[in-house]
Amino acid sequence: MEILETVRWREGKVRILDQTLLPEREVYSDLETVEEIIQAIATLAVRGAPAIGVAGAYGVALAAAEIAARCEPGLPPEPADFAESLARRAELIAKARPTAVNLQWACDRVMKAVREAGAGVSSARVALTEADRILAEDLALSRRMASHGATLLPEKGRVVSHCNTGGLATGGGGTALSLVFEAVAQGKEIFVHVDETRPLLQGARLTAWELARAGIPYAVQCDGAAAWLMKTHRIDAVLVGADRIAANGDTANKIGTLHLALAAREYGVPFYVVAPSSSFDGSLASGDLIPIEERPEHEVLSWAGRSVTPAGARAWNPAFDVTPARLITAWVSEEGVERRT
Amino acid sequence: MEILETVRWREGKVRILDQTLLPEREVYSDLETVEEIIQAIATLAVRGAPAIGVAGAYGVALAAAEIAARCEPGLPPEPADFAESLARRAELIAKARPTAVNLQWACDRVMKAVREAGAGVSSARVALTEADRILAEDLALSRRMASHGATLLPEKGRVVSHCNTGGLATGGGGTALSLVFEAVAQGKEIFVHVDETRPLLQGARLTAWELARAGIPYAVQCDGAAAWLMKTHRIDAVLVGADRIAANGDTANKIGTLHLALAAREYGVPFYVVAPSSSFDGSLASGDLIPIEERPEHEVLSWAGRSVTPAGARAWNPAFDVTPARLITAWVSEEGVERRT
Repeated sequence: MEILETVRWREGKVRILDQTLLPEREVYSDLETVEEIIQAIATLAVRGAPAIGVAGAYGVALAAAEIAARCEPGLPPEPADFAESLARRAELIAKARPTAVNLQWACDRVMKAVREAGAGVSSARVALTEADRILAEDLALSRRMASHGATLLPEKGRVVSHCNTGGLATGGGGTALSLVFEAVAQGKEIFVHVDETRPLLQGARLTAWELARAGIPYAVQCDGAAAWLMKTHRIDAVLVGADRIAANGDTANKIGTLHLALAAREYGVPFYVVAPSSSFDGSLASGDLIPIEERPEHEVLSWAGRSVTPAGARAWNPAFDVTPARLITAWVSEEGVERRT
Repeated sequence: MEILETVRWREGKVRILDQTLLPEREVYSDLETVEEIIQAIATLAVRGAPAIGVAGAYGVALAAAEIAARCEPGLPPEPADFAESLARRAELIAKARPTAVNLQWACDRVMKAVREAGAGVSSARVALTEADRILAEDLALSRRMASHGATLLPEKGRVVSHCNTGGLATGGGGTALSLVFEAVAQGKEIFVHVDETRPLLQGARLTAWELARAGIPYAVQCDGAAAWLMKTHRIDAVLVGADRIAANGDTANKIGTLHLALAAREYGVPFYVVAPSSSFDGSLASGDLIPIEERPEHEVLSWAGRSVTPAGARAWNPAFDVTPARLITAWVSEEGVERRT
């Protein structure tokens, strides 16, 4: 499996592969401030729940380096002051997008490491070390999800994919799409039916780009065609990621996932959610409590800056929906495959 | 209800409102040959099952005028020869798109009128008279569907619309959307949630244009958002048109309709199909027998001529799906409201 360098620390900056420019151009941008990190997350230059977790962690490390740089040379700040300054910046980063729990989780984890390290060490160094650890763990989690989940796919078959759940959605390995990469590496023949995933076309732009690079056969369809696909073709699995999974298994994921789950149940297709344990939020009893981001109307109303609707048109643009646990066949995490009971 | 001049006979030509240019520009094109009629239907410059029926009828009238013009002055052709020449052209027009039964139905009807008129009359005149009749009937059908169907809508409520089923989809009055126009004319307050309807955005482009002109409040959503809309809002009805309805009630309509129907059943929303009786094809026992058009891949893969997918990407682009009768609450035609039994 090729590892994509979606988010990396490079010489005191956070280097990201700018996903708004794919598949046309493969451009890496160096982010130098907390504001640039927040902007990159909010505009989906970096996206995917695990990936924005990693970006958030490095964002806190960047903030820590900024604060350290402003202190008087030779006079380290009081650890308590440092932590409070950093905590304010970490909270801004954590709020850049509301739905994926990984972002808050990663920012909190870096903050916790800084607080626990206390006096006598460089807080900036501690923050960066923790962010590096989150990235390394993310890459390991992808390998483990892929390994557990690939067993669910047949020797030769067809799957439906929604949004982008490949390397681009993570530190570089992938969630749901990593099952396909792993299955193909094991010699299985898998064809991927790619939901284009409106409004921002993460399927058509990003998943197609990853599959093309990997030489895996695929076809893109409009999101509205997936039910007819399941009715008229033998489909072996629907594979989706998750932005947040409540304690009862209800799963928030990219808008359109709920439609896929209803169609999968109707046509007897197994529906798998693939996400690391950092996407599980045990503090929320059910999916009704997951905050759902509503994004700008222009994402629906215009294309490449050009309006497709009449002047004055309005749009409703929820970025996610919640699929109830009863429609989900199993959840795949680094810990294994948990079937609905 | 404003009547749109979607397809009209104007001084020996067929004038259409070019729907590929809406909502940006309102352009009327004069079609002068059978080839131009076929092209207009195939490229969706005129679209919607009833509208392409009307266009097909006028296309046959145009073909009849062409043949008559080629005959020696003063020497009318033998009626049998004329009819055979015309029948070949009518069949070409009828095959311009395969799914909507209205197109074949309208071409057949004009041919039948010509054959029955026999010798002693101008076949071109007979063909045009029959096409005019089909248009006039279509306008009357819209009024009757609107009148029957408006009773299904509450005094104040919200409906979901898919594709375009307004005046543009017909001779000028509308099918499913005409219920909304009529209900609003009766003083009801209706908000329309408009499925954008990928790949060609007939909802975002055309339905939004019609609703804006009529001053009816609406919001566009991505097709994948409709299930979440029904889960989180009170929706009073889903209103869709039909391209062909089999004897058992199975209904072919724009791709994405099946997803809507599955979501409507899940969330207890009434699901209404609105179509004139010319969309009913009693010769097909079930929806499994309805031919489904697959359209060019570039409709999915590119946008305004610009590719959104990686080089070499493939797409699957069925233009329609079939919703089984068991998911449909009622069918509304000019004859009334028929509930599923």
